[in-house]
Amino acid sequence: MPAPSIRCFLPFAAAIAVLAGHANRAHADEGMWTYDNFPAATVREKYGVQITPEWLDKLRSASIRLSNCTASFVSPDGLILTNHHCSATCLAQISTQAQDRLKDGFLAASRSEEVRCPTQYADVLMKMEDITTKVNAATANLDAKAANEARKKILTQLEQQCEKDAGTKDPRRCEAVSLYQGGRHFLYQYKRYDDVRIVFAPEYAIAAFGGDPDNFQFPRWCLDMSVLRAYENGKPAVTPNHLKIHWDGPAENELVFVSGHPGSTERLLTVAQLETQRAELPFWLLRNAELRGRYIQFSKQDAESARIVADPLNSLENSLKVRRKQLDALNDPALMAEKRAAEQALRATLQPGEADPWAAIEAAMQRDQELNVPYTFLEAGAGFNSQLFRFARTLVRAADERVKANEDRLREYVDTSLPLLQQQVTAPVPVYAQREKLTLSSGLERMREFLGPDHPLVRNLLAEFSPDELAASLVDATGLADPALRKQLWDGGKAAVDASRDPMIRIARLVDEASRAVRRAYEDEVEAVVDANQEKIAALRFAALGTSVYPDATFTLRLNFGTVQGWDENGARVEPFTPLQRAFERATGNDPFRLPDSWTQRRAQFDMQTRFNLVTNNDIIGGNSGSPLVNAQGEIVGLIFDGNIHSISGAYWFDTVKNRSVAVNTQIMRTALTQVYGAKALAAELGL
Amino acid sequence: MPAPSIRCFLPFAAAIAVLAGHANRAHADEGMWTYDNFPAATVREKYGVQITPEWLDKLRSASIRLSNCTASFVSPDGLILTNHHCSATCLAQISTQAQDRLKDGFLAASRSEEVRCPTQYADVLMKMEDITTKVNAATANLDAKAANEARKKILTQLEQQCEKDAGTKDPRRCEAVSLYQGGRHFLYQYKRYDDVRIVFAPEYAIAAFGGDPDNFQFPRWCLDMSVLRAYENGKPAVTPNHLKIHWDGPAENELVFVSGHPGSTERLLTVAQLETQRAELPFWLLRNAELRGRYIQFSKQDAESARIVADPLNSLENSLKVRRKQLDALNDPALMAEKRAAEQALRATLQPGEADPWAAIEAAMQRDQELNVPYTFLEAGAGFNSQLFRFARTLVRAADERVKANEDRLREYVDTSLPLLQQQVTAPVPVYAQREKLTLSSGLERMREFLGPDHPLVRNLLAEFSPDELAASLVDATGLADPALRKQLWDGGKAAVDASRDPMIRIARLVDEASRAVRRAYEDEVEAVVDANQEKIAALRFAALGTSVYPDATFTLRLNFGTVQGWDENGARVEPFTPLQRAFERATGNDPFRLPDSWTQRRAQFDMQTRFNLVTNNDIIGGNSGSPLVNAQGEIVGLIFDGNIHSISGAYWFDTVKNRSVAVNTQIMRTALTQVYGAKALAAELGL
Repeated sequence: MPAPSIRCFLPFAAAIAVLAGHANRAHADEGMWTYDNFPAATVREKYGVQITPEWLDKLRSASIRLSNCTASFVSPDGLILTNHHCSATCLAQISTQAQDRLKDGFLAASRSEEVRCPTQYADVLMKMEDITTKVNAATANLDAKAANEARKKILTQLEQQCEKDAGTKDPRRCEAVSLYQGGRHFLYQYKRYDDVRIVFAPEYAIAAFGGDPDNFQFPRWCLDMSVLRAYENGKPAVTPNHLKIHWDGPAENELVFVSGHPGSTERLLTVAQLETQRAELPFWLLRNAELRGRYIQFSKQDAESARIVADPLNSLENSLKVRRKQLDALNDPALMAEKRAAEQALRATLQPGEADPWAAIEAAMQRDQELNVPYTFLEAGAGFNSQLFRFARTLVRAADERVKANEDRLREYVDTSLPLLQQQVTAPVPVYAQREKLTLSSGLERMREFLGPDHPLVRNLLAEFSPDELAASLVDATGLADPALRKQLWDGGKAAVDASRDPMIRIARLVDEASRAVRRAYEDEVEAVVDANQEKIAALRFAALGTSVYPDATFTLRLNFGTVQGWDENGARVEPFTPLQRAFERATGNDPFRLPDSWTQRRAQFDMQTRFNLVTNNDIIGGNSGSPLVNAQGEIVGLIFDGNIHSISGAYWFDTVKNRSVAVNTQIMRTALTQVYGAKALAAELGL
Repeated sequence: MPAPSIRCFLPFAAAIAVLAGHANRAHADEGMWTYDNFPAATVREKYGVQITPEWLDKLRSASIRLSNCTASFVSPDGLILTNHHCSATCLAQISTQAQDRLKDGFLAASRSEEVRCPTQYADVLMKMEDITTKVNAATANLDAKAANEARKKILTQLEQQCEKDAGTKDPRRCEAVSLYQGGRHFLYQYKRYDDVRIVFAPEYAIAAFGGDPDNFQFPRWCLDMSVLRAYENGKPAVTPNHLKIHWDGPAENELVFVSGHPGSTERLLTVAQLETQRAELPFWLLRNAELRGRYIQFSKQDAESARIVADPLNSLENSLKVRRKQLDALNDPALMAEKRAAEQALRATLQPGEADPWAAIEAAMQRDQELNVPYTFLEAGAGFNSQLFRFARTLVRAADERVKANEDRLREYVDTSLPLLQQQVTAPVPVYAQREKLTLSSGLERMREFLGPDHPLVRNLLAEFSPDELAASLVDATGLADPALRKQLWDGGKAAVDASRDPMIRIARLVDEASRAVRRAYEDEVEAVVDANQEKIAALRFAALGTSVYPDATFTLRLNFGTVQGWDENGARVEPFTPLQRAFERATGNDPFRLPDSWTQRRAQFDMQTRFNLVTNNDIIGGNSGSPLVNAQGEIVGLIFDGNIHSISGAYWFDTVKNRSVAVNTQIMRTALTQVYGAKALAAELGL
């Protein structure tokens, strides 16, 4: 699954603390609710607002899942509103040394100038079907390992049948979704738009004013918006179910809703799983902090070097901050104490003599820690950190998997996934040799450090070459930077891939046996045990609480409610709105605190009280980036782009007192479109 | 205190798990014993060897503390044997673009060609005096904060009196040493040699064969040796108490001793202190992993760039591995369980109603975590990571402190410390502008990230300049790279420093108020509380165990015993000796697995069974680098340079099953001196 992104991107796979705990959070507007289980009664009781099925349907069908973010339809002609950082990769992909779209922004003067984002797509959730009974029937009476295999097969079969049933006239992308730690399984049907084009993006300097230092901070002044358009058959998509924008933004304390795709939370994990994350997170952090240093130093060489690493560096810095603060949360004794108490309470509902699923998971976590290093370098590809290697691996594995029966394949190569895979691997995206050499040699070096120079694969690869030499020779000699060759190998399938003498293809082939072996060990000895026992815990939880709880985030559509409000920080009040005035006061003239000329030149014309960003207490997490913030009328009043620093611990629990989501106010969007960028046609299409 | 170093360098300040625990380690040859409390009876009972006071005196007076390591006298003319990595900074300091001594090695053709190491010195422990009664009398009946102040004053007074009593004919350097977590205080008297010259070092490629990937690994093939000479009054020092070298090395299972200066262990810390380390270590690791990445990328520019960052990069990589594995140890549930049990057992000896020192320390640790970030960036200087800034701070602080009464000064600026400080700050060492800009801008960037752009000092420094601009302007404009200016400012004292317009001096001055404020808060609210309560815990421990225990390491002289032995790793036996043959088999031709030409050219002449490195189960830690490994006759049979990977958890407990120290065998030293480097005079002086 593509990584969900937000100025709070989240990594791990995983709803509430149960029974015990949450004393100080009991009355929170907490929860990432599925649309079929939204607590409308609670909203009515607490806020006097009636949420109807029609209201829900409209918001759902205007909500979009991008590859990495959330977005929403905002015009009848397919116009999509999302964050700037959700379009950053697209902007980098369509940039050149001469024209830096990521840095300088983009505005299509007319629809014919809208530029396709090579790897972006837009999914709209059309239907959800509960398939729990079917899945459980397929896994009944099997041991954990066999059940894990059987579950994957039945999910593949159901997905395929679903797409077949939908037909080709108005096709559906069907995706199995496991919720409540495997306690429930669903089939989600999406309508997919695979032609998504960029319409507007402001300069990076205003989109991410304050840069990494201000990321996850508030007060804040980021115009973190971009506009895309979905196309079908070469024409703007027809999207009657779009949202209207309310250009005055919300009022303080106003009831607001966020519809979006939170990436992942870990609120239902066991204590052993949390302790494992605490032990394993530093391994990720260390490798990637070092990579950050390499990118930064590389970017000092010259402007072009800085340009080609800007997008991966920004993304990496965001991830580093998220995981660093997650680790801080896991070192918070209060959090662990609450988790222990909740676990103890649920464990007490076990029948005497019943097998203890927590103990089974704890044992599997031991194995997880043993497998973590080889899994990371081999199967997760950290040892071969390079876009070209990822192309090669996809081509090699697709070749090997596509000749198998659909249900016997690795899950990411089943028929229903192939169209997107093909788009991603054959897309015309730039590949920068210097950047590839940097990341690949860095990955090889760390693999040698952690697996050890005497590991057979390391020895095989590096007996004659240094990491730098190997990386350089691979990047220089491979032809995979050419999309035509990638298309040829994709289309040619196994025969073409097996016959290829391309060195990157050969390396991907060389690594694959060891890589699949560690994946197999992980799936059989960790994943299978965890899944089987999480399912048991889910059953205990359902028995105690029913569906009065919400499932952990899984980058699937959720809806939550809250209000516009600030918070107290070290005894001082943080107000919910930031005026434009203070952006000018805070600017230093140096990145990342530099306002672009387009803004400084118009300073005299602005209403300095225009509201720029705002905070609410909605419960969001990475993947919610680009989510529409809507009022009770279902109108957009803001654009979610970040959480405050306290929101990061939201991976594990929801801190009502300080956890806030951060949004772009529609007021400043209006100012930008009408006063700064002169985007007349766009403004008109958006109802301005 | 200069950082003690070893291919296992250790950072934190802090003897054994007490009462409970250590079940599987009960019969270990564990312990870093002070010379006045060496368990000779245990050695006699277990090994039938009588350790006499004379034997101890001889070994003690041949043992040397370097600024960063241990060493020993090995000839009557002041010849000193230590590790190559203990002389790495010296070698880098005396290198130029044209002549890279760190990479290519060094051999003085005659005594007149021996080159002075600008910042190295050699201390020999002459006497230890128990001053516990005097210190306790000075702090009696004071609250924690006042006691902390009073303790510092009395220690300063006693040190000064000691040096005065010793006189100037055969002067002594007197240093107060607190052992057993403040349960005992001593005055250690050293004879100091401040003129130490380099005599011999092999090439880096053989000294550190395997580089960072093999660091803390075994089997191993490192000729990690160098030879220095102490001078007095311009002549080789007269050192009758030197050790003889036994050139055949030790036998398997032979009883061996390590005399040296373990830097620091944390075996007596409370659980709250250990949990605090677990929470704080990632902060250090992240910053320094990033810096590693910057150094690595910088070193790719060209050979000269690689040369000027080689020494700090090697040292950083070593520290990163140590702290990474320390963090792993702190995430080991077994370690924490044992620590909890031991603490519980000792806590149970508290009298009813007695104040609980563990609870007091736990509360102080909360404050520690609050102060950690500002303390690190301001007082510990991480925000201004630059040699030039460190010169400036030393000059500014020395100027301000030297005008105060001795006992009122910051402890590192008392009279007894000034000669060394002066040597360090005025030494003619190279300063590399590019490296300075890299480290300084990196520190400024991270300070802005962690303290936040709105922190007053950050705002003050970076309102107009970017971190890169500020770093560049400071490094380019300061005159402090010139030792003559530094000497002038040192000699000129406060008047000269106050009058200086040097920009680095002015920045050091600008930072000093905030920096001293956070230090004051730390000393009063953390250090004072911890010290007072550790003293109480120490009293409980003495009451239960007397001095049948050893104190935590403090970079002061210790002696331990053990035997030459391998261990079992994942079911396979690791033999204690490595033959030369396998170094050739393992070499790839690429750094860090490249053997230098001096060795490959002589391959045919070697006895391939010559023993290269070896392991023993002695209990060592960072700071023991360069320690003589001696047999029962007090002869050197090896040179400690590292521990195996399991030794790193030795910071917290001693794992007899797998913890091993790693030494250079005297056999390979003989081969090197006689067959490879043609070091005839040196070999003769060493008795070959």
